[in-house]
Amino acid sequence: MKTEFDDAYFMQKALDEAQKAYDRGEVPVGAVIVIDSTIIARAHNLTETLNDVTAHAEMQAITSAANYLGGKYLNQCTMYVSLEPCQMCAGALYWSQLKKLVYAASDHKRGFEVMQTQLHPKTKVLKGVLEQKASHLLKRFFFEKR
Amino acid sequence: MKTEFDDAYFMQKALDEAQKAYDRGEVPVGAVIVIDSTIIARAHNLTETLNDVTAHAEMQAITSAANYLGGKYLNQCTMYVSLEPCQMCAGALYWSQLKKLVYAASDHKRGFEVMQTQLHPKTKVLKGVLEQKASHLLKRFFFEKR
Repeated sequence: MKTEFDDAYFMQKALDEAQKAYDRGEVPVGAVIVIDSTIIARAHNLTETLNDVTAHAEMQAITSAANYLGGKYLNQCTMYVSLEPCQMCAGALYWSQLKKLVYAASDHKRGFEVMQTQLHPKTKVLKGVLEQKASHLLKRFFFEKR
Repeated sequence: MKTEFDDAYFMQKALDEAQKAYDRGEVPVGAVIVIDSTIIARAHNLTETLNDVTAHAEMQAITSAANYLGGKYLNQCTMYVSLEPCQMCAGALYWSQLKKLVYAASDHKRGFEVMQTQLHPKTKVLKGVLEQKASHLLKRFFFEKR
C-alpha cells in the first residue's frame, strides 16, 4: 500500500498535534513543518502549560525547524497548521520567509487574514485542508469549557 | 542623590540591553519589562546567535516576565523597548494584554504602526523616549555592516 504524502497527510499530522493540546486542556492547535516530504518539526499549543502567550504551536515549530536546519530561514519549508495563524505567528512566518503555509480552519476573529498581517511576499497560502476535522475539535473544546 | 524612576530611566536600561546585542553583532534592540517601578525582565535581540527569527528582545522579555509573575498576562506591566515592535512582537503584546508600551525609535518600514498590527485595546502607547540615542545605535550598526 502506497502512502500518499499529500497535503491531507501532513495536515493530519498537525491535527494529531492538536489532539495532544486538547488532551492537556490547551486550545487544540497543532503544527508541523515539512521539507522535501519530511517532517522536521512538530508542536502543539502550550500557552497554559507554560504560562506563556508566545507558546503557540506555530512559534514553537518555527524555532524547532530552524534548530533542525541550522539556519533561521524556512524558505524551502511548508507549515501545516490546524488553525489560521494569528498576528504574532504570521509576523514570525514573515521573518522566516516560509515557502508555503497550509492551514485547516479559518479564524475570522483573530486570524491574520482579517487582521491584515503581512506574510513574506514569497509565501504561498492554501487553506481549508481538513477544515471540518479541525473545526470540530476546536468546537468540542470550547463547548466543554463552558 | 535621588534616582528618578521615570520613562527615561527605564528606557536607558532597554538601551543598555540594546548595547549588549550590538556587542554580539546582533541588530541592537533591547527591552525591559517593569511592574511597580521594578524591572522584572531584561532581554536583547538574539536572532543571529540563536538562529531563530522569534528571538526578538520583546518576545524573550514577555516569556521572562510571565515566568517571573507566574501568569501569562502583563496587564499591570510596562514594556520599554528601544525600537518600535514588529508585527510578531506587537501580536504577542496583544495576547499579553500589556498595560503600557514605551518605545524609543520608530520603524517606518516594519513597525506595527505602519503594518497596522493591533495591540490590546487597553494598551497605552508612548513613543520617542530617548529616540535619538536608540536611532544612533541602530544607524551605527547598519553603517558598520555595510
